[in-house]
Amino acid sequence: MTTLAAIEAAATRMAGHVRQTPLLNAPLLDRLAGRRVLVKAECLQVTGSFKARGGWAAVSALPPGAGVLAMSSGNHAQGVAFAAAAHGVPAVILMPSDAPAVKIANTRAYGAEVVLYDRATDDRDALAARLSADRGLVLVPPFDHPEVIAGQGTVGLEIAEQAAMAGVQQADVLVCCGGGGLASGIAVALAAHAPGLRVRTVEPAGFDDMARSLASGMPQRNPSATGSVCDAILTPAPGRLTLPVLRRLAGPGLAVTDDQALRAVALAFTHLRVVAEPGGAVALAAALFAPGLGDTVICTISGGNVDPGLFAETLTRYG
Amino acid sequence: MTTLAAIEAAATRMAGHVRQTPLLNAPLLDRLAGRRVLVKAECLQVTGSFKARGGWAAVSALPPGAGVLAMSSGNHAQGVAFAAAAHGVPAVILMPSDAPAVKIANTRAYGAEVVLYDRATDDRDALAARLSADRGLVLVPPFDHPEVIAGQGTVGLEIAEQAAMAGVQQADVLVCCGGGGLASGIAVALAAHAPGLRVRTVEPAGFDDMARSLASGMPQRNPSATGSVCDAILTPAPGRLTLPVLRRLAGPGLAVTDDQALRAVALAFTHLRVVAEPGGAVALAAALFAPGLGDTVICTISGGNVDPGLFAETLTRYG
Repeated sequence: MTTLAAIEAAATRMAGHVRQTPLLNAPLLDRLAGRRVLVKAECLQVTGSFKARGGWAAVSALPPGAGVLAMSSGNHAQGVAFAAAAHGVPAVILMPSDAPAVKIANTRAYGAEVVLYDRATDDRDALAARLSADRGLVLVPPFDHPEVIAGQGTVGLEIAEQAAMAGVQQADVLVCCGGGGLASGIAVALAAHAPGLRVRTVEPAGFDDMARSLASGMPQRNPSATGSVCDAILTPAPGRLTLPVLRRLAGPGLAVTDDQALRAVALAFTHLRVVAEPGGAVALAAALFAPGLGDTVICTISGGNVDPGLFAETLTRYG
Repeated sequence: MTTLAAIEAAATRMAGHVRQTPLLNAPLLDRLAGRRVLVKAECLQVTGSFKARGGWAAVSALPPGAGVLAMSSGNHAQGVAFAAAAHGVPAVILMPSDAPAVKIANTRAYGAEVVLYDRATDDRDALAARLSADRGLVLVPPFDHPEVIAGQGTVGLEIAEQAAMAGVQQADVLVCCGGGGLASGIAVALAAHAPGLRVRTVEPAGFDDMARSLASGMPQRNPSATGSVCDAILTPAPGRLTLPVLRRLAGPGLAVTDDQALRAVALAFTHLRVVAEPGGAVALAAALFAPGLGDTVICTISGGNVDPGLFAETLTRYG
């Protein structure tokens, strides 16, 4: 159970190392959306995604010198690698061999040892267990971990403050959702600091396990693990820690198509001049294209680590 | 003559309307550059460039209700159009018909009336004089105007504060330079608030009129008005107001090739996740590729309004 106190403690530990990201807006984007859209640009975070926060929170909470292990297709990998390097401890990252090349390269560049596995044939969890045991490494899970959720929750502290500065008291806060670490952390922070702001998860259509879990009250799984361009947020099921928080604090979940996510990537390029990866743009896509939202919404762009070729293709098709 | 007091007054008038942009950095970019690189991301400014500052400063200094006229290939156009719309006054913008489509479209979207002219055959200044006289519009020049320079100088106030927060007392501040409005405004602000930070202009090779003017002590012109991908900063000669300021306060000017500017665009995409236009990336290019710089540099990314096709092509070639 992640508390407000844990989030505030994480914020204190990461000050000066992890960036307070801007809350962006653009008049022409508002016009397209038909509402006021405020964008929490976590793609501008160090390592290019909010995962630097959870990585920092988790590594900084360990006993000094403890090495870490993470399993990730990319953003969590870079967040943990960055935090481990800054703390001077070893990091081993298990990554699928089909992860975007830029994410593998950057994880290595932060000084982590990358171990690649085949999604189809290797048993990732068995590999991880062996590495952990053989080398005394502490696993940092991508979302289902109190300190990781606390770290992501620091986004919520900033949103509460920045929304107040912008005069926004009541709004839905649309959050890109894989396992729900970011969404649940933000929800805890907002419940305390900005009770008029309500989290709503946004997922790729067909991979909306969180939305279905929130609707049914029971954990639901996705039928497939691949098949969306939003690779960063294709998790099989909600977290055991995150779902109860979101059941208590979040509104109904939303889903967007890959086409809408890619259009949002192109519009973020044109109107906000930031680089969003498709999975990081689903909340903006919902702000632009989902029905039934209010006059003002806040949305996260949760990451911007995208292969240049895919980005170029997206601009060519949608720009 | 733009004074510190004028810059501070402009900052007060634009508070809440123009954004304080972040000073970004990335460990992997530092490694490529071989030095610490802090990036003042004015591409994240409203309208996508620092020109919103000068536009706001100039329009807000006029008598209430005065309509404005500007001549611009794009960023100044959007800055003035944005400021005029927010002040509820009409804006007419004279733009070359070969300006990037996104800049023309955005200028219109801000509510300005765009009048296109042919660079080769029309007399822009005569057109402007007639429009100004017929319709009682006040010309807002792109750089050679005390209030415009004061507005751009607010970037310098922010750099002084953000550099101090980052522990930087001594550094070159590399500034993308067309007519020198941004560079001279920043130089005045830094001379007062951060005397260890020294402005150095960066221009496209072959269009380095400011660098040659600073070196020779006499105003120098560019031999050509076209021929670089850095369209936003191809001005024929330094400003009458800006050159004396830079002669007094700036170090030697720098120049980079188009190839270096485009590589900087691609590296800003990968490591900072921001969209830079080529002319807005020349200072980052110098930070990465110019010889003879110190351990720490600060550079502006001055704008991010770039046609999606050109950006896609740049990523395909350099990403």
